[in-house]
Amino acid sequence: MTERIHNFGAGPGVLPESVLRQAQQDIWNIGGSGMGVAEHSHRGKLFEKIITDAEEEARQLAGIPDNYKVIFMQGGASQQFAMVPMNLLPAGETADYLVTGVWSEKAVQEAAKFGATHVAVSAAGSKFTRIPDVAEIAYSSAPAYVHITTNNTIYGTQWSELPPVPEGVPLIADTSSDMFSRPLDVSKYGLIYAGAQKNLGPSGVVMAIIRDDLADRAPASLPTMLQYRTYVKERSLYNTPPTFAIYMVGLVLKWIRETGGLGAMAERNAEKAALLYDFLDQSTLFRTPVHADSRSHMNVVFRSASDELDSKFLAEAGKRGMEGLKGHRSAGGIRASIYNACPRESVVALVDFMKEFELANR
Amino acid sequence: MTERIHNFGAGPGVLPESVLRQAQQDIWNIGGSGMGVAEHSHRGKLFEKIITDAEEEARQLAGIPDNYKVIFMQGGASQQFAMVPMNLLPAGETADYLVTGVWSEKAVQEAAKFGATHVAVSAAGSKFTRIPDVAEIAYSSAPAYVHITTNNTIYGTQWSELPPVPEGVPLIADTSSDMFSRPLDVSKYGLIYAGAQKNLGPSGVVMAIIRDDLADRAPASLPTMLQYRTYVKERSLYNTPPTFAIYMVGLVLKWIRETGGLGAMAERNAEKAALLYDFLDQSTLFRTPVHADSRSHMNVVFRSASDELDSKFLAEAGKRGMEGLKGHRSAGGIRASIYNACPRESVVALVDFMKEFELANR
Repeated sequence: MTERIHNFGAGPGVLPESVLRQAQQDIWNIGGSGMGVAEHSHRGKLFEKIITDAEEEARQLAGIPDNYKVIFMQGGASQQFAMVPMNLLPAGETADYLVTGVWSEKAVQEAAKFGATHVAVSAAGSKFTRIPDVAEIAYSSAPAYVHITTNNTIYGTQWSELPPVPEGVPLIADTSSDMFSRPLDVSKYGLIYAGAQKNLGPSGVVMAIIRDDLADRAPASLPTMLQYRTYVKERSLYNTPPTFAIYMVGLVLKWIRETGGLGAMAERNAEKAALLYDFLDQSTLFRTPVHADSRSHMNVVFRSASDELDSKFLAEAGKRGMEGLKGHRSAGGIRASIYNACPRESVVALVDFMKEFELANR
Repeated sequence: MTERIHNFGAGPGVLPESVLRQAQQDIWNIGGSGMGVAEHSHRGKLFEKIITDAEEEARQLAGIPDNYKVIFMQGGASQQFAMVPMNLLPAGETADYLVTGVWSEKAVQEAAKFGATHVAVSAAGSKFTRIPDVAEIAYSSAPAYVHITTNNTIYGTQWSELPPVPEGVPLIADTSSDMFSRPLDVSKYGLIYAGAQKNLGPSGVVMAIIRDDLADRAPASLPTMLQYRTYVKERSLYNTPPTFAIYMVGLVLKWIRETGGLGAMAERNAEKAALLYDFLDQSTLFRTPVHADSRSHMNVVFRSASDELDSKFLAEAGKRGMEGLKGHRSAGGIRASIYNACPRESVVALVDFMKEFELANR
């Protein structure tokens, strides 16, 4: 009896229960130190171990090459939308963006403040219900970088594999909603960043993996806190970092390792997603607008026969202890976010309820 | 038996025990919602109430006038060092800084990236052991704003009252280490900002109070996340805010109100500080370099007869369950940070130990 319900929220999302139990203890007194984790100095030995361990867990999980650094920042992906061009788009050059949803659009709009941008492909024509075919991508002649959003939280689409990028051009990936949900080959990227609040921890911290040479490109005239080099040089400790959030990320990464690592995580996530998509594909009431080859394993979006019936579904789901199912305010409908920490039991309960609702409302 | 020790850390600092007890419950299941506080959507009703309540507590505590907004940001005071000039220093104008320590120096250095700066007064001549006399201040002819650091964490000095500022010029205050430790007249400021991790909550969130007209001055070409207007217009919810940190700040503000408000807090802080300064002023072993009229009620810095004896003191204090007493790496010596949540009992225990140490080492 945990007194906890099924949380399908899109973020901040559900956290592993073992992590929450540990945090309950540690926020009062961590490791017998007589002080809570949030009360420890960021310059003390205890936090030094927390941030070092978090980085090491990330390195082991993703097999991060030595010429990449793991850094922790603040401001969410939205601040990265500015930091990326400020650091990596020199005057006179062009940055290419693959636009697959609202967050990619925001990224390119923000970048346009700092230099020339080129939309190499856009899924707007399909109303973002599919990931573009790589044949549709038309890069500019010599992009400073290519930016991709690997998973689209609002529309429920996900790149199943990385698109080709021109030789030598750094690939910058916003992985806020699928970071560490599956194995990844870090060497294919220049920079990977993610707000923690979906798969990695609470909100308030961004984890990033950056190739050494890219961290050193920013003009020194940028705000100190907006230069990647600041975080690399000072090991994310230039100023007081969000210590509790980094602690939580460390616990979540440890939990990923202890439950089998990224390969096992990807298998569980695929299985959870299949439970939902298999039901949706044969349902007479519910349907997903997302093309079969573009479906996200993180956010499953669907609708019933009408807005009214969607509302009824959401209300009844709430009574059954299933929360966070309302679609994004810009898209409507229903959305089940089934991130790393969403237990299989929650997905099974949701599908069972969908079957029951379908029978009662056909 | 709380198993907790005396925490004199300079920040992140000690938090009220009642707040930690509440957080232990709420991180698992808040308000019977079946979800932990860090797992709730920032767009949901529960978090809406958390952030609204936190703002309202702040407004009540400080009597904030209607033409000021309370906002929550990320990046610490260090990011504010850039945001202030980026938002408030128009091209061709000059910003004036009152320099009273390392953090003021960092603020003015960062501002120099974005426009002309003028050091209206500096305490460097006294090695930052005193707050300048207001007669020493020489403002530029028409400053865009005046920036002050109200308390100097490293050197243990504090402005006991605000200096005069030219008519109509906004006063910008970094209050990171004394926010809400005493009553304040918000109408005298244009912008007040503070990293939470000393008096208000955990690290990872900045609370600010900004006058409406100043929030709207930034050029639209600035990064969206670096414009104050973004936080005012979107009520700090443009993107996912650091929800757990804001929740904690709300609990701490409620605790301040329940323990008597800012007036009672100031009295307790003055009493705690007096316990230490009164002992220091008659001690034959310990001394503080800080002038009597400039002494901080938040950070009490002192030394014994030698660096060796300081080290011995710190080691023995650690054995007695007193942590965080080492002076800042740039200043050395000993520092007791006695923020809002530092209990009187901790200060009494420290003074008792200092007396004992003095007897044993004279």
